[in-house]
Amino acid sequence: SEVKKIAVIAGDGIGPEVVAEAEKVLKRTEELFGFKFELEHGLFGGIAIDERGTPLPQDTLEMCRNADAVLLGAVGGPKWDNNSKELRPETGLLGIRKALGLFSNIRPAVVFDCLKDASTLKPEVLEGTDLIVVRELTGGIYFGEKFRREGPFGEEAVDTCVYNVTEIERIVRQAFEVAQKRSKRLASVDKANVLETSRLWRETVNRIAPEYADVEVEHVLVDNCAMQLLRRPSSFDVIVTENMFGDILSDEAAMLTGSIGMLSSASLGEGSFGLYEPVHGSAPDIAGQGISNPIATILSVALMFRLTFGYEEAATAIETAVKNVLDAGHRTGDIAVDKSKAIGTTAMGDLIVAAI
Amino acid sequence: SEVKKIAVIAGDGIGPEVVAEAEKVLKRTEELFGFKFELEHGLFGGIAIDERGTPLPQDTLEMCRNADAVLLGAVGGPKWDNNSKELRPETGLLGIRKALGLFSNIRPAVVFDCLKDASTLKPEVLEGTDLIVVRELTGGIYFGEKFRREGPFGEEAVDTCVYNVTEIERIVRQAFEVAQKRSKRLASVDKANVLETSRLWRETVNRIAPEYADVEVEHVLVDNCAMQLLRRPSSFDVIVTENMFGDILSDEAAMLTGSIGMLSSASLGEGSFGLYEPVHGSAPDIAGQGISNPIATILSVALMFRLTFGYEEAATAIETAVKNVLDAGHRTGDIAVDKSKAIGTTAMGDLIVAAI
Ligand SMILES: CC(C)[C@H](C(=O)O)[C@@H](O)C(=O)O
Ligand SMILES: CC(C)[C@H](C(=O)O)[C@@H](O)C(=O)O
Repeated sequence: SEVKKIAVIAGDGIGPEVVAEAEKVLKRTEELFGFKFELEHGLFGGIAIDERGTPLPQDTLEMCRNADAVLLGAVGGPKWDNNSKELRPETGLLGIRKALGLFSNIRPAVVFDCLKDASTLKPEVLEGTDLIVVRELTGGIYFGEKFRREGPFGEEAVDTCVYNVTEIERIVRQAFEVAQKRSKRLASVDKANVLETSRLWRETVNRIAPEYADVEVEHVLVDNCAMQLLRRPSSFDVIVTENMFGDILSDEAAMLTGSIGMLSSASLGEGSFGLYEPVHGSAPDIAGQGISNPIATILSVALMFRLTFGYEEAATAIETAVKNVLDAGHRTGDIAVDKSKAIGTTAMGDLIVAAI
Repeated sequence: SEVKKIAVIAGDGIGPEVVAEAEKVLKRTEELFGFKFELEHGLFGGIAIDERGTPLPQDTLEMCRNADAVLLGAVGGPKWDNNSKELRPETGLLGIRKALGLFSNIRPAVVFDCLKDASTLKPEVLEGTDLIVVRELTGGIYFGEKFRREGPFGEEAVDTCVYNVTEIERIVRQAFEVAQKRSKRLASVDKANVLETSRLWRETVNRIAPEYADVEVEHVLVDNCAMQLLRRPSSFDVIVTENMFGDILSDEAAMLTGSIGMLSSASLGEGSFGLYEPVHGSAPDIAGQGISNPIATILSVALMFRLTFGYEEAATAIETAVKNVLDAGHRTGDIAVDKSKAIGTTAMGDLIVAAI
């Protein structure tokens, strides 16, 4: 089959460890399914700041642009937290999203059977929770004009939140399409009782909704959504929202599943190109000890297969392998009930590779 | 004792019912403690739109300005949801906050014993949860410039988020003072890795923190806070944050206690003036049936006594009366386990009045 180019960005903290296991999975699927992957590695985040003086070196960006998909571990850590803006890992993250046109962040929040009890929510409330947050990723207050100025009451800071109809329409359409493939329920989250951008958002949703007549649309105010996620998480199917609200709500949704260490995400643009990464961060506290959980990153590969390459069979095979290894009782420390029986990062990776 | 003027705004939905019970409590404390209250009533919200063509009539605003404190029921309802901006209840709410200089919204999130099981969180996670969200209420993206314009990609909407150091300093100082009277832990929530207003916020917190050396300060990113509220709610004491983040997080915090129908709030400005209201809304679905729970509004009176009038003894007496009535097993429908034994709004109000 056709060669697929994958840009691999290990990043910081546990990033390199978990990405190494995901690479083993890629290799195994080449053998089993006859795929051909060409992997290229690039520096990004804190390590790029250290080695290149910028979180997003030009050659890393070029490598991503030439690839069919990007696999990202995690970036950031306390070492760079107090750097000036241009020298912080998250500036690289915002830069790569914008530069690659990744306007849509797709974050499934599901409950893994083996982690049913890990949530702080009551099991009966959590039962059946399986939702996706579709977050706009390259607009809003993240990318609007920002500045300081002197005002009558001293120094002032300004952030600008801007959305145009085209931006809103493309993310909302994508969310409708995701909803059509699932339970056909879409919750559009805004703050239309206060924000002008939210009013344009809501108008746009209402304007295009008739084109997706099979999808039931509900408008939910962001404060109410933060509550309803807690009260009735299983009643949500697809949630679509703007950048800042999506940042907050997708983390809340991920945490309430109790499965945050196992969740993968996709950032997509026009076409099939996508960047895939685990939802968990760089976990600097456990980095380098070989105890991190590679499952979220391995499941990010499954998501890449499904959404970018259309390798549905292999995607399912990876997901089934993960499930089987967990069902057999194998656990990394983060998800082990009996920590003394926990296995390490590479052992978990090997078991999953063997189970595919 | 000195006459205190209280502006009473019943508002919409269940507002009038619950405020009527709170008024009984006011009267009872006059008899018991020798207080003298002068109550004035004003139109506000949806009912003001219907009767006066504006959600915040000038005479209501004047009445509030001349009062020592304001007691508010609730405003809003589906009837006015599709009105133009100037004719919506929430526009009145934003207007009254700004006009009265109520820059600080204080929202305790506590778990009531009788509602321990009402939360969707596991009881062991909730155990000991008792936090206060201090939300900036008259700045940020709520009150910045908002407009539409034509751009290269079609219609655009713009919201502007502005904060000056003076605004930030006064709310942060108030939060430090609240924390000093409690467990001396303050979590300042921002998005300093993305927003300029958040960076100014964080700098300001760090600048004044040494003046409150007995308070331990932690900076928490808003997305992480949304997660930590779920994971370790009892570890928070006082949370201070800007307007938009506070809107979302205070609702999340209230909901996770399971006690949202019992929570009161205070909106404060400079000096002792304050506006007090239940956290729950106007609940149009049950309005007029006499089944709503007046406890949150009655507890708002206790908060008014404590924070505006300095009537600590009477505040505690009200809170104790509520506790005793609940301990005796009386419940309104919303908090009753056996709904068939639920009592109505006035019955609950009468029991509490009798128990003071
Ligand atoms: C690191 C930060 C800039 C980023 C964001 O806010 O988008 C992160 O929280 C995320 O959700 O990927
Ligand atoms: C009604 C709305 C404008 C208001 C707000 O967002 O401030 C409400 O949600 C609140 O928290 O009091």
